[in-house]
Amino acid sequence: MITVALDAMGGDHGASVTVPAALTILRKQPELKLILVGVRERLVRELAQHNERESGRLVVRHASETVDMDEPPASALRNKKDSSMRVAIDLVKSGEAQAAVSAGNTGALMATARFVLKTLPGIDRPAIITTLPTVHGHVHVLDLGANVDCTPEHLLQFAVMGSILVSAVEGKNNPSVALLNIGEEDIKGSDTVKKAAELLRASNVNYCGYVEGDEIYTGSMDVVVCDGFVGNVALKVSEGLAQMIAHFMSQEFRRNAFTRLAGLASRPVINAFRRRVDHRRYNGATFLGLNGTVIKSHGNADVLAFEHAILEAVTEVEKQVPQRIGREVGSMLEKREQA
Amino acid sequence: MITVALDAMGGDHGASVTVPAALTILRKQPELKLILVGVRERLVRELAQHNERESGRLVVRHASETVDMDEPPASALRNKKDSSMRVAIDLVKSGEAQAAVSAGNTGALMATARFVLKTLPGIDRPAIITTLPTVHGHVHVLDLGANVDCTPEHLLQFAVMGSILVSAVEGKNNPSVALLNIGEEDIKGSDTVKKAAELLRASNVNYCGYVEGDEIYTGSMDVVVCDGFVGNVALKVSEGLAQMIAHFMSQEFRRNAFTRLAGLASRPVINAFRRRVDHRRYNGATFLGLNGTVIKSHGNADVLAFEHAILEAVTEVEKQVPQRIGREVGSMLEKREQA
Repeated sequence: MITVALDAMGGDHGASVTVPAALTILRKQPELKLILVGVRERLVRELAQHNERESGRLVVRHASETVDMDEPPASALRNKKDSSMRVAIDLVKSGEAQAAVSAGNTGALMATARFVLKTLPGIDRPAIITTLPTVHGHVHVLDLGANVDCTPEHLLQFAVMGSILVSAVEGKNNPSVALLNIGEEDIKGSDTVKKAAELLRASNVNYCGYVEGDEIYTGSMDVVVCDGFVGNVALKVSEGLAQMIAHFMSQEFRRNAFTRLAGLASRPVINAFRRRVDHRRYNGATFLGLNGTVIKSHGNADVLAFEHAILEAVTEVEKQVPQRIGREVGSMLEKREQA
Repeated sequence: MITVALDAMGGDHGASVTVPAALTILRKQPELKLILVGVRERLVRELAQHNERESGRLVVRHASETVDMDEPPASALRNKKDSSMRVAIDLVKSGEAQAAVSAGNTGALMATARFVLKTLPGIDRPAIITTLPTVHGHVHVLDLGANVDCTPEHLLQFAVMGSILVSAVEGKNNPSVALLNIGEEDIKGSDTVKKAAELLRASNVNYCGYVEGDEIYTGSMDVVVCDGFVGNVALKVSEGLAQMIAHFMSQEFRRNAFTRLAGLASRPVINAFRRRVDHRRYNGATFLGLNGTVIKSHGNADVLAFEHAILEAVTEVEKQVPQRIGREVGSMLEKREQA
């Protein structure tokens, strides 16, 4: 039995998304227990609306406060010790749950997770990793915004963690890891990235060199490593471009009676395309490098998307991702000390 | 009469693109003179294929060498003093031409332009700026890769130059300028960006705050400023995502007889959409901050795209972009010295 704690009040939609997502996924996963953390009255009312109540596999844990989406992380950490987010992470710390999932404020979630769970030995900073669709399948990209300034050593740690995650979750031996840079030639790019490349060449990681931004979507490596500023911009730029393309396409299909008809005829094609790049299927970014599993859902996730974030948590608990990172980084450190 | 020197051998397609583009644009622009720089024999042959020859408005200038697309910039600068790229820029330096356009190696073009033309007083480093389509029109983004590491002062200079370019070329008073960051709140982001924000608030620039990556495509500011690493990744990520979307859509439309029919019905819509985001219409990135106008065309530009790059050069010469930057930055410097 795996137990996952949900910050049931987090995100733009709070309990109206987290509770139905919890109910749906419990039906699909018989070996899963969920703890809904938040204002008891609100959660019980939401359960009742779905003709459900607490059970052995669905427990409500009261937390009186909620972290606002735009609250500064330090203030959330200092002032909201009984927030749904904090209590969910406390449950991971105490061992009552093996993972926490939240659609709340990313900065506050990272600060709280780091403060409560601490990083694994040998890991200086946790990183945020997510999966993106590509021409050939999918790719894992980190860091997506936890670390604005990174040293070459940090990028190496991200590469090691990303590699372990992919090999654990996908059962892939020696996943290939690339560094995001601006030009594939060895002479190009920032000093930090060049030094990280040296460290990677000397490591156990299956390092396959530099990639440029376009190869995130068209390349065939398993993991792309970059600092959190660059990773966040890459992710957000993608969101903005996808929105613009959808907006223009929809405008063009609405131009006149003929284009409306073409739109109707193309609906199955467009729906098939949408399913293929549906960001909800990729929802659930992992905070890697902590003593425990913490998954961040997109703030405006709907029920399907939030389910995917819970599933990501279940998979990483099953595959013991934090334990594997702890073991492998631990043995890397030992080797270094002996050397 | 405006004279533009073309690196007629540069880019993936060389003279087979640059020469027909030159011929087409000369027909449209009666007040334009072009100097085709490159191997005379090759250029005369290409002209003959179009039943054309040299004239008062279309002059061939022989240059015996060509810079390779993957040649290190320092080597091109040192060893290829008679390259088509170098000679085209020399023509700007000597005043025979007011602008140079090249589809060649970006690094070599920047190194050569900087070495030959020098930066304007008060500008530490040239930056690369280009135009991108947005939901509401278009936006100008810089730097796109000339400067990997930037100080807050560099970002301020980019903002000033971008602002002057937009006000000169589009006749817009006080164009709005945003800083690319990872979070719109004042507390978020890198130290460099935060310090640049302080400098911008104290400047004459119409600074409108931070934007996140998605707002490049969905926002309504005129100029977005970032360092060259981030800007290059943003641009390349966009190219990769657009390629992936086009690939998936085309696959879905080819799935079966029905989807092929839907594709046929949708062709006018898809063509209208393509025209709207056609990157060829946005071809031609400007090297800002030099004593002279240098335009970089995409390496694999076709005839239409290369025409747009030449047009960009013509506009910037007409609007006296380098002179305006020189004057305004000069007066900023004077004020600072007096203060």
